[in-house]
Amino acid sequence: MVAPLKVGIAGLGTVGAEVVRLIETQARVLAGRSGRGIRVVAVTARSKAKKRGVDLRGIEWVRDPMALATHPGIDCFVELMGGAGDPALSAVEAALNAGKSVVTANKALLAKHGLKLAKAAEKHGGALNFEAAVGAAIPVIKTLREGLAGTGVTRVYGILNGTCNYILTRMEQEGLSFAECLKDAQRLGYAEANPSFDVDGHDTAQKLAILASLAFGTKVAQSAVYVEGISSIAPEDLRAADDLGYRLKLLGVAVRTAKGIEQRVHPTMVPKSSSIAQVMGVTNAVTIDGEGIPPITLVGPGAGGAATASAVVADIADVARGIRANPFGRPISHLRDTKKAPMERHEGGYYIRLLARDFPGTAAAIATRLAEQKISIESIVQRHPNGGAAPASGKAVPVPVILITYATHEDAVRRALAAVQRDKVISGRPQVIRIEKN
Amino acid sequence: MVAPLKVGIAGLGTVGAEVVRLIETQARVLAGRSGRGIRVVAVTARSKAKKRGVDLRGIEWVRDPMALATHPGIDCFVELMGGAGDPALSAVEAALNAGKSVVTANKALLAKHGLKLAKAAEKHGGALNFEAAVGAAIPVIKTLREGLAGTGVTRVYGILNGTCNYILTRMEQEGLSFAECLKDAQRLGYAEANPSFDVDGHDTAQKLAILASLAFGTKVAQSAVYVEGISSIAPEDLRAADDLGYRLKLLGVAVRTAKGIEQRVHPTMVPKSSSIAQVMGVTNAVTIDGEGIPPITLVGPGAGGAATASAVVADIADVARGIRANPFGRPISHLRDTKKAPMERHEGGYYIRLLARDFPGTAAAIATRLAEQKISIESIVQRHPNGGAAPASGKAVPVPVILITYATHEDAVRRALAAVQRDKVISGRPQVIRIEKN
Repeated sequence: MVAPLKVGIAGLGTVGAEVVRLIETQARVLAGRSGRGIRVVAVTARSKAKKRGVDLRGIEWVRDPMALATHPGIDCFVELMGGAGDPALSAVEAALNAGKSVVTANKALLAKHGLKLAKAAEKHGGALNFEAAVGAAIPVIKTLREGLAGTGVTRVYGILNGTCNYILTRMEQEGLSFAECLKDAQRLGYAEANPSFDVDGHDTAQKLAILASLAFGTKVAQSAVYVEGISSIAPEDLRAADDLGYRLKLLGVAVRTAKGIEQRVHPTMVPKSSSIAQVMGVTNAVTIDGEGIPPITLVGPGAGGAATASAVVADIADVARGIRANPFGRPISHLRDTKKAPMERHEGGYYIRLLARDFPGTAAAIATRLAEQKISIESIVQRHPNGGAAPASGKAVPVPVILITYATHEDAVRRALAAVQRDKVISGRPQVIRIEKN
Repeated sequence: MVAPLKVGIAGLGTVGAEVVRLIETQARVLAGRSGRGIRVVAVTARSKAKKRGVDLRGIEWVRDPMALATHPGIDCFVELMGGAGDPALSAVEAALNAGKSVVTANKALLAKHGLKLAKAAEKHGGALNFEAAVGAAIPVIKTLREGLAGTGVTRVYGILNGTCNYILTRMEQEGLSFAECLKDAQRLGYAEANPSFDVDGHDTAQKLAILASLAFGTKVAQSAVYVEGISSIAPEDLRAADDLGYRLKLLGVAVRTAKGIEQRVHPTMVPKSSSIAQVMGVTNAVTIDGEGIPPITLVGPGAGGAATASAVVADIADVARGIRANPFGRPISHLRDTKKAPMERHEGGYYIRLLARDFPGTAAAIATRLAEQKISIESIVQRHPNGGAAPASGKAVPVPVILITYATHEDAVRRALAAVQRDKVISGRPQVIRIEKN
């Protein structure tokens, strides 16, 4: 009989408490699946007094994360404190350097220090598992690391932030403004008091950096991700998307191109018929394009205590079973530097919405400026804000115009729109949203 | 340096040839991921002469599957011949009894002999991997076996047969009959000359039996699956589904109930908003409901040479990495006999379509018969086949009537409809389709 795996957990919030509970209640199933028992032997958290609804008797309380990480009585250190810096970073490093395995849900830590930590794991023989860091219980890490072991990945993209998808879904379905939906998301606990990390795309960027490394065998590099958030999205963009056969989602996209690996987070028009377009509310989803095979899409809860704990416990069970996957799928020596494809060379279709001061003149100016950049227009729609009736005053009111381009380059679009702005035929700044084909 | 994993492949059709090609072209990535090389050293197939577009030089040609299975020079036997009987059965058994690992895509073999084979694997220490047997490259086996290791599953259901989903999608989108769509599916190579295995639900039943075992820790038992196919589905059912907010799919459903495990394959009304309802054409999908967490849905290609080969190669890579999961997730001694929940006690909503000889009289008779069985009606729609105009002849023409019931029991529905038939108020047999809520 193999000795049970002795687990130490740092961080006893909703997720940590649920992990303790699952390991306790699922003990027999976990032992059967893993071939050995799993036991939580030590924990640490900021407050020992806090009520957590879980029985911690018989579990040693350790004074701080570092002491737990290097505790001689544990085999597997579970880091659920969060944050890219200390105490998480030092504790995880110390555990790995002590030859222990680590399970973490900490995307920020991995996006920033993943390579260094993977090196430590490889050097000392411990596992470094982080299924819960991206898409909670959606098995996207396992799928990229093991499930597609023999298949080259050409693109991975997804809805990786439930807050943004909740906001965009509400805006689409109820015609509300970004600000109104954000307020509701905050009231419901889907968004933080300071929502920037979510709505500006940084949370998605951290997760995308991890997926890109697994997909393409590159060194994880959050700094290589181009990021745009959703705060500029207006209800009229969602209405226009609907009219044109698209839905608007905040996507993280990592794609292999001739110029390198593109990693980008931005509001995106996706065809209504795509799997990703069906994903509503706080649900997350990831689509993986493998060489020669139709896309695989994984859909499910991207957050939440129970879903995150489910992934953490599965990772612990893998450690118990003796699985030591390379953290990023390949040995460190195989991981290449990220050859970052410059965003200006991004190729794709574009949605452009602008306010024409005077429609005929503006249409002519835009057509000229786009033609100068060799951009072809797939469709142009002039939208009458008041059903086409001329304003009573007879004064020219700016008219919304929406353009869809055929595939072109980002810098061509930027140049053309800069020229249109210089022409002074539009009011305000144009709205530009990239289109992602499935 | 660990010696490479020596692989023998039995069956060199589209999948087998693609496996050989992938192992060759992805050699470096596979070695990196697995920590050791993977080499195809021996193969067998019916015809040595057949052109396969893949280089077999340097690979030993073995005279028959049994000789390959017990070949002292191989570590891992890959069975791609198909069929629940010999030669696949004997060869897989022999390989496992010789302590080798086995990778197979053979759902029929596993649904019928899975328990016996898992016992042999457990006894002799080999792996038995079969990701490709259900949903090809969709990582559903890995997700149930490893990804949800610590989470109790309450229900697993899915679209597991691309042929049926292709037919239902065409019927829905183009208003065509089952027979027309089947003919097209055959012409396009999506359906066999003898389509019964697919359209009568048996293919789905085999896959469902495998998923149910993994989900619930029961002994795989294809005979415990209730099966209905799609040949009775008419375009008016698809139109009615659409009107009522549903889509019609052939689902395999395994669900834990108070009465035991229900395993059933039948045409099913699913809410249009569900992830599974979005899955069109030959695409497959599986939804897993875990205790306390929102559903996880995996969508992708359920068949095809490249997608199947992708899963086979991932399984081989797991063998190379030394992973020995219990074939059905738990040790044999933990697997329970399937406590089959009788279909008559199935509880759910029902869609019932019948042809009323005379609407007012029929409505009254139906209402009475359903009330006798304590069935509540959620909605009743009388559909005028000719827009409501009375027939010129003045003669009563049968009128389609569609009922949706609230949750009730299967046997109550059967008894009520038998009584309605005895009342002679309807023409022909009623169409009955179960509703699955998400």
